[in-house]
Amino acid sequence: MILGIDPGLANVGWAVVARDRGETEAKLVDWGCIESKSGERMEKRLCLIYEALEKIIDKFGVKEMAVESLFFARNVKSAMKVSEALGVIKLCGAKKGIEVFDYTPLQIKMTLVGYGQAEKEQVELMVRHFLGLEEKIEVTHGSDAAAAALTHLFTNRDLLG
Amino acid sequence: MILGIDPGLANVGWAVVARDRGETEAKLVDWGCIESKSGERMEKRLCLIYEALEKIIDKFGVKEMAVESLFFARNVKSAMKVSEALGVIKLCGAKKGIEVFDYTPLQIKMTLVGYGQAEKEQVELMVRHFLGLEEKIEVTHGSDAAAAALTHLFTNRDLLG
Repeated sequence: MILGIDPGLANVGWAVVARDRGETEAKLVDWGCIESKSGERMEKRLCLIYEALEKIIDKFGVKEMAVESLFFARNVKSAMKVSEALGVIKLCGAKKGIEVFDYTPLQIKMTLVGYGQAEKEQVELMVRHFLGLEEKIEVTHGSDAAAAALTHLFTNRDLLG
Repeated sequence: MILGIDPGLANVGWAVVARDRGETEAKLVDWGCIESKSGERMEKRLCLIYEALEKIIDKFGVKEMAVESLFFARNVKSAMKVSEALGVIKLCGAKKGIEVFDYTPLQIKMTLVGYGQAEKEQVELMVRHFLGLEEKIEVTHGSDAAAAALTHLFTNRDLLG
């Protein structure tokens, strides 16, 4: 079981992806979005994210985590806040004995679409293709989280997920 | 007991400051620096910081945390990494039921020196003055951590520490 994460503070997208022994196709086990309210104290929001993630890892027996790494140029303040959440996400992995892998948006696009300048919609389409989904993942950042998990799976061909 | 923190990734400075009932002067209970090596995986470093902090909070019965907030303009990449550590520091407080307060470098300078453009050495001198120390705190970022704790104490006059 691979847990893909699209980091954020208000919305942390997550998706659990698996590939069974002997199978080539990956499947989407579950997905969702951890939400924290902007009115709350920062440490409470971080705690909420950490505890929700702990439950997901336990529930699905997650073995590895793949996180889309942050790329910000404009809003440093917002980047720093999301980085606080990212730290908590990585800590949660470490505490559960799970290795955490980072993938840049470029790596994800190259792996799934084969083209570094791919549009968001193209990535989303390829995620559905690889997971055999007919419908969109209608969860905020759920598709991006699945994209990170698939990138990890395809980058490590021997992984069973 | 107030735990002051000067956040970082390789070096997290900390200082425990207290003020007894009826006393006006604050005292420095203990101080140190949590170090994590740059060769280690990020999630391991975050875990080391979290666990070291947990022990400090338990050992001294810390009631509140005062953190010097980050101010970066130049190196966004480094700022984002330190923010990951900051997230873990705040989470640790929240998990222990401790409120975490942020103070900007400006607030700290204004509170301790009374002058927002104060030099690092002036802040260090005032930290020693308020804590009744003859000698320098010879620990990386230990004095800055104590400065954050003192700022919290002075901003909340009724606190016993």
